[in-house]
Amino acid sequence: MNSPLENVVIIGSGPAGHTAAIYAARANLNPLMFEGFMAGGVAAGGQLTTTTEIENFPGFVSIGGPELMHHMRQQAVHCGTRIRTETVAKVDVSERPFKVYSEEGDVILAKTLILATGATAKRMRVPREEEFWQKGISACAVCDGALPLFRNQPLVVIGGGDTAIEEATYLTKFASKVYLVHRRDELRASKAMQQRAFSNPKLELVWDTVLEDVFGERYLEGVKLRNGKLDRVWDMEVKGLFYAIGHTPNTAFLEGQIRTDESGYILTEPGSTLTSVPGVFAAGDVQDKRYRQAVTSAGTGCMAALDAEHFLATELAGGQH
Amino acid sequence: MNSPLENVVIIGSGPAGHTAAIYAARANLNPLMFEGFMAGGVAAGGQLTTTTEIENFPGFVSIGGPELMHHMRQQAVHCGTRIRTETVAKVDVSERPFKVYSEEGDVILAKTLILATGATAKRMRVPREEEFWQKGISACAVCDGALPLFRNQPLVVIGGGDTAIEEATYLTKFASKVYLVHRRDELRASKAMQQRAFSNPKLELVWDTVLEDVFGERYLEGVKLRNGKLDRVWDMEVKGLFYAIGHTPNTAFLEGQIRTDESGYILTEPGSTLTSVPGVFAAGDVQDKRYRQAVTSAGTGCMAALDAEHFLATELAGGQH
Repeated sequence: MNSPLENVVIIGSGPAGHTAAIYAARANLNPLMFEGFMAGGVAAGGQLTTTTEIENFPGFVSIGGPELMHHMRQQAVHCGTRIRTETVAKVDVSERPFKVYSEEGDVILAKTLILATGATAKRMRVPREEEFWQKGISACAVCDGALPLFRNQPLVVIGGGDTAIEEATYLTKFASKVYLVHRRDELRASKAMQQRAFSNPKLELVWDTVLEDVFGERYLEGVKLRNGKLDRVWDMEVKGLFYAIGHTPNTAFLEGQIRTDESGYILTEPGSTLTSVPGVFAAGDVQDKRYRQAVTSAGTGCMAALDAEHFLATELAGGQH
Repeated sequence: MNSPLENVVIIGSGPAGHTAAIYAARANLNPLMFEGFMAGGVAAGGQLTTTTEIENFPGFVSIGGPELMHHMRQQAVHCGTRIRTETVAKVDVSERPFKVYSEEGDVILAKTLILATGATAKRMRVPREEEFWQKGISACAVCDGALPLFRNQPLVVIGGGDTAIEEATYLTKFASKVYLVHRRDELRASKAMQQRAFSNPKLELVWDTVLEDVFGERYLEGVKLRNGKLDRVWDMEVKGLFYAIGHTPNTAFLEGQIRTDESGYILTEPGSTLTSVPGVFAAGDVQDKRYRQAVTSAGTGCMAALDAEHFLATELAGGQH
């Protein structure tokens, strides 16, 4: 049942995972990647696989999300990465070598681990949401706000925290109007943030209101809202809907063995990918709730591979490789 | 003489500068970039412009360095970046707005600055060096060590510090033999590092020796060495020469106004691109002496743009944009 001792096992297959794989493979570490099988509700390749158009990954004026991830996967394989299309059920990092348990029941032994399982944007999952996902519905204002689809159009943002106000404010640069829809009658955001929101003429707060559904033909044309206090339901015509209700980092499978913050994001030593367990490294959105871009994820993936290589060459010197 | 007040001025045009430009432009900040004119002895586009083949930038199985930088530049322009092919002579960040002085005598006023001027690898500049640069001569083992050119071949590394030993050790994964040539009779590296070096059968130390010249036909075929103590000169046949004698971060033009470490690297708040001066951000190799990869630079370029955007939206709220 046991497989040979691996130098590096990479869990996750977004930009962080594949960049880690490319660097680890080129460092002759013969990495093994678990790309997952709908892990965290997301296909192998990560969140970009649900993005139609990317204009901010350096090197590509415009490329489809699935296409970019296809390129990265090809490159990782070309460099010598072995990929298993399985989800990791759990890991045991209480002693070295670490144990990785696949959902199919295999146990893999590993000298180092790179955790790159990402984070999944929270959504409301209203009835027709899937139909308009990336056709007017997004969970990333920075990624998608500048798209022509949204220029000089009314947009709606769902949320009430600091991030929601930041994203709504950001979108006022492009939109004709941004409605911030919040289910309560006050914001969770900081006072300073609130003040900025209230003083922005393009931003309008919609209180006590929740999203009920979305509608449109090919692209999103509007949202159905419900004011709980007034028990009123109405349609609002908007060309874009942005969720800003947070993300869920995909760390449940770690069962608390790696130090995280209160939201479940893995804590790394700043400026590196070192986690609370020596030999375990974290890259990408699973450890980043601030920037969350494909290229920042890729950057930390590279760092994780170099950190793992350094660990193997120093801490574990004398071992094979 | 003065130009209008800029939101963001980006100094430098490697992967960090262009990724910052792409993100800043997409955030409607209308960035202005100084790409430099042979600044730091390097062409616009940065160090990659002297690299023939890149196999570790995610998204491209293989691409030429100049070609990748051409793509990034096109993309930055496509997003709306204005580029000036001039070198910045100096800056004044003692008060806001900051002043940027071009070598042609212009003064540009800016609300925020992104410093992405990179670092230049030190070289010996032996007579025939330019002829074989990137044809057997490199300054980055991690970038180039895995190239077929160097597989199972004898290589030489010049240097004596921790980085030199790390790079020499790294190269033993690919090479038939690695000679570490050091001008003194002892290493500056830490004891632990030295021990690893001495116990590696593929690594041989060559003491009291300096590089005199290189030779070959189309590609590097050997190096001419001189032992100063014995006053002996001889040829050594190697297929690769790696400089590991450090880098010079391109920060002289800052004239000490931004906090740096003792080697001149800009200090940033870990996990961000914030420098000692609020509103001035640093990205890429000018603030990274550890990872120094194109993709890590690009990642921090993105971070710098998002940090600048956040700064403009919060600290300078009320101003135009």
